[in-house]
Amino acid sequence: MTMPRDPSDAAAPAHPTQALDDTVHQRHRLGILTITAEAERVEFTYLRDMLKLTGGNLSRHLAVLEEARLIDVTKGYEGRRPRTWIAITPVGRNALDAELRALEALVLRHRRSRDA
Amino acid sequence: MTMPRDPSDAAAPAHPTQALDDTVHQRHRLGILTITAEAERVEFTYLRDMLKLTGGNLSRHLAVLEEARLIDVTKGYEGRRPRTWIAITPVGRNALDAELRALEALVLRHRRSRDA
Repeated sequence: MTMPRDPSDAAAPAHPTQALDDTVHQRHRLGILTITAEAERVEFTYLRDMLKLTGGNLSRHLAVLEEARLIDVTKGYEGRRPRTWIAITPVGRNALDAELRALEALVLRHRRSRDA
Repeated sequence: MTMPRDPSDAAAPAHPTQALDDTVHQRHRLGILTITAEAERVEFTYLRDMLKLTGGNLSRHLAVLEEARLIDVTKGYEGRRPRTWIAITPVGRNALDAELRALEALVLRHRRSRDA
């Protein structure tokens, strides 16, 4: 069991959770970004069902992500049925990659400390 | 580029973000749990400095974690100076392990989809 490093040491690296951005880290928004990163675009009801959210709850998270320019939301029709499509932006991809790198660092740090 | 699986398919595995618990996932609380998991106990001011939080903000997150029985908070003295010590509980260790396993699944899924 090792003691964590003294944070007053100027050379101490920032804790990995410092690199997490709440806009991306919130678990449903992290879900939205990882799912939209897997396809060119996804439909609103698909995301809603996949993440087991209500429509209202999903809409609120999409608004946060759109405001931060991490996703694009497009309304249109498929035949006569209205559809809402969600696509991740390049900014969103970068933000997701940064989040996942920070999470990976956290997992590695924990594993190293546990196995030490 | 592969389309994500149809979530109405009963055999579809839950998305990894479904396994995340907001009590543990919130980034500062995740920081508190990973740091306390590295030592027998840590002092309040150490956590505050390491996570760059105000004392009030840290106290609020500690209250959430204590309420969920994920940490124990002990007040005492070191010489004549009052000290607050924080220790992760066995329940907290299990919750942190579950969170980190879910995060690892998310990172792996993302990497596989990106490299596909």
